[in-house]
Amino acid sequence: MALYKFDKSIDLFVRATKKIPNGIYGHVSPALAVPGEFPYYAASGKGSRYTDVDGNEFIDYMCAYGPMVLGYNHPEVEAAVAAQRERGNCLNHPGEVMVQLAEALTDIVPFADWAVFAKNGSDVTTWALQVAREHTQKRKIIMARGTYHGAHAWCTPGHGGIIDEDRAQIKYFKFNDIDSFYKVIEEHRGDIAGCIMTPYHHPTFADQIMPAEGWWKKIQKACNDEGIVLILDDVRAGFRLDLRGSQEYFGFSPDMACYCKALGNCYPISSCVGRDYLKGAASRVFLTGSYWNSAVPMVAALTVIKVLKETNGIQKMMDFGNKLSKSLIDLAKSHGLQYKFTGPPTIPFPSFANENNFFRNQRFCSEITRRGSFFHPSHNWFVSTAHSDEDLKETLKAADEAFAIVKKEFGS
Amino acid sequence: MALYKFDKSIDLFVRATKKIPNGIYGHVSPALAVPGEFPYYAASGKGSRYTDVDGNEFIDYMCAYGPMVLGYNHPEVEAAVAAQRERGNCLNHPGEVMVQLAEALTDIVPFADWAVFAKNGSDVTTWALQVAREHTQKRKIIMARGTYHGAHAWCTPGHGGIIDEDRAQIKYFKFNDIDSFYKVIEEHRGDIAGCIMTPYHHPTFADQIMPAEGWWKKIQKACNDEGIVLILDDVRAGFRLDLRGSQEYFGFSPDMACYCKALGNCYPISSCVGRDYLKGAASRVFLTGSYWNSAVPMVAALTVIKVLKETNGIQKMMDFGNKLSKSLIDLAKSHGLQYKFTGPPTIPFPSFANENNFFRNQRFCSEITRRGSFFHPSHNWFVSTAHSDEDLKETLKAADEAFAIVKKEFGS
Repeated sequence: MALYKFDKSIDLFVRATKKIPNGIYGHVSPALAVPGEFPYYAASGKGSRYTDVDGNEFIDYMCAYGPMVLGYNHPEVEAAVAAQRERGNCLNHPGEVMVQLAEALTDIVPFADWAVFAKNGSDVTTWALQVAREHTQKRKIIMARGTYHGAHAWCTPGHGGIIDEDRAQIKYFKFNDIDSFYKVIEEHRGDIAGCIMTPYHHPTFADQIMPAEGWWKKIQKACNDEGIVLILDDVRAGFRLDLRGSQEYFGFSPDMACYCKALGNCYPISSCVGRDYLKGAASRVFLTGSYWNSAVPMVAALTVIKVLKETNGIQKMMDFGNKLSKSLIDLAKSHGLQYKFTGPPTIPFPSFANENNFFRNQRFCSEITRRGSFFHPSHNWFVSTAHSDEDLKETLKAADEAFAIVKKEFGS
Repeated sequence: MALYKFDKSIDLFVRATKKIPNGIYGHVSPALAVPGEFPYYAASGKGSRYTDVDGNEFIDYMCAYGPMVLGYNHPEVEAAVAAQRERGNCLNHPGEVMVQLAEALTDIVPFADWAVFAKNGSDVTTWALQVAREHTQKRKIIMARGTYHGAHAWCTPGHGGIIDEDRAQIKYFKFNDIDSFYKVIEEHRGDIAGCIMTPYHHPTFADQIMPAEGWWKKIQKACNDEGIVLILDDVRAGFRLDLRGSQEYFGFSPDMACYCKALGNCYPISSCVGRDYLKGAASRVFLTGSYWNSAVPMVAALTVIKVLKETNGIQKMMDFGNKLSKSLIDLAKSHGLQYKFTGPPTIPFPSFANENNFFRNQRFCSEITRRGSFFHPSHNWFVSTAHSDEDLKETLKAADEAFAIVKKEFGS
């Protein structure tokens, strides 16, 4: 198999570092994969695949880190979007589609009575905390330590530019450790406005952790008993586990939920939905942005929901995700390697069971990436409804070579 | 002149209030104009005009509250954007255009050595504060009281969901009152990280205030002397006063500047640029969002800069703004009314000189809006390069009728 090179990516990156701090920043930073071993700049995308600036084509297991759910440039989304764009996008007022989208979202998400829209996950997770504070007139927010809820100061994984006040009213428990959860409630009883949590734990540079038996029932009961607003951060998992929201997958019911990623199939939109009892508070917390009323991303979201529903898209992704994990684990085993998957089938995170340092994972992902399947070594993956058996076949062929290299270099 | 009705807007709004807190929220809220007297939902836009859901066409003096600068669906922007969109938009990595845009922005903004990109004004104003804190390792930010720097808790004009910690390290002076500025520095000397300010004062529900003679020179000197990072919030004014940034219009030089609005001609993008000495700090403050590396808005921004430069767009807007204010003031005078403009010609805010309560302004704006020129009574306007003499002629015809009504009802 001819191996990909990333010369143009690297040249561009060197040029970028002169005019952009870190060259490329944030969650797509090359430093989070393996510098020099992965593409840095993308040129085009179609279906389940994208091409980098060096002309290398990849089967994409990151899906733009989540936003791509139906495939890049999906015909039905693009057709709906084109019609709206030709009429107008960002005007003085929202379009009729804003009402339609709020109706559609509150229709599919069982507990949701209202919806608002923004551009980014952080926009809505931060706003949801404010709504909880406004409603309860309390200050503290509790969250699972190490969870990514966005890039704002109260939750950013970065260390720069943070002051004590940013987190003075944020208190932590450990995911899946119910005693630590009860303890933080005990310690701050009477001053807790909200609890924000992802439906399962999806850290970076670590295995994903599914909720323990009974976890969500206990969380929900405690929040209800204590008058704590339960906020589901479904930014990453939303519309990849259950079309009704990830609370249905895990069997509980929050008071608010935040969506982004899969919602617009790469068109910039996020949303927060909530229960009726929070609508008054929601109306008193100012929420706005220059482009937030744009009609095009709302048309995209409306179409994504429709297509996922009509095509049973979630099940399609689950099936592909299950085939992907089973066949890669089996293939690794045939090489004498221990490969494992954590997290749900549609948002998998694979790694080698016999290491904690990701050395094998980095080597394996580098080798398979330069053979045409983009595998990230330290961030959970995403699958889409565009991934096909043909994709899987090609990926397994590349994986066979990449596993052989790992076996040769590491022995097991 | 046949008067517009807003029946469908109002019906949609009633429907919206059932599923969306406030129905329409944020800066485009109908409550900020005159409820029932203005359109609530837009259907389409082209050039300097847009059409609402009732089929009413308006000459647009709000320009989507700033983002429209070359006209809706500008041919050159749309062509560049279409080519990029067909290749790909939001992928696993930024496109080459990210590097090109950073080069272009640092090329046109004289003091800028680097650039980053986001989606919204608040994204970059908040991030800029963090960079100032990271660089100085100090906590306090000083700002002019009543300035809109975005919708985040440290600066939102809203009152809901705010806790003491959000503003514990924000200290205030009065715009154009240099003594109050020196006083706040005196009081917090040694603990001030940054000073954030708009190039001139543009509040809502009030006249705009241009900087006093020597204001910016004194601000810049004090910041430089005290080691305070001077941050220009050019979100609203950027690329409407001077293509090199509004600091050139007013003759000073900040350390960072934030852009949004005009940058992408309605495609969602914002930016922060800064001096070399802040690049290290900037690289240590985490910055990211799900769609922030999307290539389409960056291509739009690159094209906007090119078109504004090639067509001398700023001067074109200045000329139109000057004609607009002069002709409306003269027309009002001919009716025995005192109409005045505050702020720069390209971001004008007109009102009646003999009132503080906006009653005349609300009546006048309502009457001219239902005659086809969208005039906002309480928020500064924006002009674009698409506004023509023909637009002005039509607007003056409608203004003649609207001024006559004000004269009749108010007497002067």
